[in-house]
Amino acid sequence: LVLTSQPPIKTDVLIIGAGPVGLFQVFELGLLGLSAHLVDPLPRPGGQCTELYADKPIYDIPALPVCTGQELIERLLTQIKPFNAPFHGGQLVTQLEVLEADPDPKAPRFRVRTQSGLLFEVGAVVLACGVGAFLPRPLAAAGIEAWLQRGVFYGSIQDQIPLALPHRIWIVGGGEAAVSEALLSVDALSEALKNKLPSASEPPEVTLIHRRESLDAPVELIERFRQALSPTPSRDAPQVRLRFLQGQITSFLRPTEDDEMATGHPERALGQMPIQWVDALANTHTDPADLVSVNLGLSPQLGPLGEWGLEMRKKQIPVNTEDFSTSLPGVFAVGDVNTYSGKKKLILSGFHEATLAAYGIAKWVWGTDKIPFEYTTASPRLQARLGVGVKT
Amino acid sequence: LVLTSQPPIKTDVLIIGAGPVGLFQVFELGLLGLSAHLVDPLPRPGGQCTELYADKPIYDIPALPVCTGQELIERLLTQIKPFNAPFHGGQLVTQLEVLEADPDPKAPRFRVRTQSGLLFEVGAVVLACGVGAFLPRPLAAAGIEAWLQRGVFYGSIQDQIPLALPHRIWIVGGGEAAVSEALLSVDALSEALKNKLPSASEPPEVTLIHRRESLDAPVELIERFRQALSPTPSRDAPQVRLRFLQGQITSFLRPTEDDEMATGHPERALGQMPIQWVDALANTHTDPADLVSVNLGLSPQLGPLGEWGLEMRKKQIPVNTEDFSTSLPGVFAVGDVNTYSGKKKLILSGFHEATLAAYGIAKWVWGTDKIPFEYTTASPRLQARLGVGVKT
Repeated sequence: LVLTSQPPIKTDVLIIGAGPVGLFQVFELGLLGLSAHLVDPLPRPGGQCTELYADKPIYDIPALPVCTGQELIERLLTQIKPFNAPFHGGQLVTQLEVLEADPDPKAPRFRVRTQSGLLFEVGAVVLACGVGAFLPRPLAAAGIEAWLQRGVFYGSIQDQIPLALPHRIWIVGGGEAAVSEALLSVDALSEALKNKLPSASEPPEVTLIHRRESLDAPVELIERFRQALSPTPSRDAPQVRLRFLQGQITSFLRPTEDDEMATGHPERALGQMPIQWVDALANTHTDPADLVSVNLGLSPQLGPLGEWGLEMRKKQIPVNTEDFSTSLPGVFAVGDVNTYSGKKKLILSGFHEATLAAYGIAKWVWGTDKIPFEYTTASPRLQARLGVGVKT
Repeated sequence: LVLTSQPPIKTDVLIIGAGPVGLFQVFELGLLGLSAHLVDPLPRPGGQCTELYADKPIYDIPALPVCTGQELIERLLTQIKPFNAPFHGGQLVTQLEVLEADPDPKAPRFRVRTQSGLLFEVGAVVLACGVGAFLPRPLAAAGIEAWLQRGVFYGSIQDQIPLALPHRIWIVGGGEAAVSEALLSVDALSEALKNKLPSASEPPEVTLIHRRESLDAPVELIERFRQALSPTPSRDAPQVRLRFLQGQITSFLRPTEDDEMATGHPERALGQMPIQWVDALANTHTDPADLVSVNLGLSPQLGPLGEWGLEMRKKQIPVNTEDFSTSLPGVFAVGDVNTYSGKKKLILSGFHEATLAAYGIAKWVWGTDKIPFEYTTASPRLQARLGVGVKT
């Protein structure tokens, strides 16, 4: 929990997830006159469409015979522009607090916090988070928790190298990010060596450890990696050593008092981690490491919302198909995150769900069953909200 | 019932109604590998989008910030082109026959007939007929049934005038179609007069009867009508007389033997109809008419499908939202014609419904629960069905 002293952001509805369905949710809420903010762990709106299918064709959006993921998102952003819904990127929602009933019908019903400290006070929450936030796939090694952010990092460690001046860097993974991270680390340590840092009897070392023999990276990158494994010998200067191990890290041991004494660098002692790893022949080895970068890719995870007391079924949220409400009053779920009889994980279905959810949300927020149903083609009120000129 | 000697048209699915939802139904069925034909009472595809909103803007189709009704239909026609689903316009479906169970799983399950004699043998039927077929609004006058198509016609009678050579034409209605029909009738009878037809002592007469004093037609048309009511007198030739009556036809009387004798035209006797009408002061009049054109506009009517034994609720068809099946196994309902908890009559919802219905239809037609779920972005099979080039 990150405490914040910022004033809370107040809006009718917080939409968690800014993929195509979350974006269209803004539109349907806006037509009914409800304001909304969007939050997403990704830095930009679009979700999987932008991250995974940006340049891939989609053929089954009605009346769009073909469009790319990026195009779909751009079209939706244009469509929802009239409603000026702020987008908060890089925000993982961590906490949902149900507020006590207030006699004022306009009082907020939920307080929602993000990992980096944003605070929202809202009338309703829409979960449009798809299969979840794309978070780094975790390294399943015993004892890793004690070292996270203190020597073991998910993703890039390039900003850590100048601070830690590590002798022994381990990179976990076999994809493009891991291979690239290994090469960048060699370069960074070589640069430090020129300045006689890090000082030590042995030259520093970068180890790429991957469970398979083969790497899954662009050919050109693998070729550079292969060359860096057997560099041209140089007599002038010590060189950074690069290794490739086939194996898996199984545990991180706690440092002993002796280890800390031995390094002579108590301030870096925590970074000197005894690693146990198993090679392809099932032999166990123990090696020291100063800095570990885990690059096992991203995987979708529902994250903290699994702990909000929502009824879940196989990592999905059962909903009432009348209004896509969940088991928690005031919380709605649309798109791939929800489940119901006949559910198909299609963008189109999410659009329909967001539409019916908007009516359910309006009923909840305004406390009335009388939500007018109007057509954009004919309603001057809807057209005014859309900011389009109307001939009357 | 029209008997036909044509061979039946065989296809997996008959879609009744070719509005936007019926068209998108072709797409979703086609993706799954099911063939379909479309029938509609209108002469062209598009339904209300083409008939009522062709040039009006629609703002709530996802990822189409604005498009007209006509544009939406054209986009959908482009999208479904790969599936070559034949469209049968001007077809009002009259009869649905449930066929006896056949051990052959490929045997048709339904025989469907249209008013004009088309015969289909299909595995499943989708009702995508919206609020119904747009049929002429009926004239509520006693005894009218006996004269329908024998003197009284809905819509234009211009093709009847040369055959019937009527002396007294009555046009019912006050809209553009009625006023226009009156003027066309005056012109047609004037032309006949030049050829000394119809022969009679009195010049022929066209009567426009409307329940209100005012007409609802373009100004220019009303002006022409006004001029025709008081034509410049001509001494050269007898002229067709045009009248405008405020009132309502209340009944059609049966002709007497004497009437038939009096006309001297036994072949036209049935056309000589004694009409009772009530004027604005509630006085009843009886006048003879030879030909009546009823132009009270179109109104949506579910038509014969109300007699198929489907469960109905307020002229709508309750469906299971899992697959949009109706109470009659093998018959599905999508779009404005169906009803379920939370239903909103939106094109977007119809698209979603057609999608889930396609899976339900595939299960029904193929008799299996194992319908593969694939994405158009990734599936070579779906892309082959769409006829799009795939890089592999």
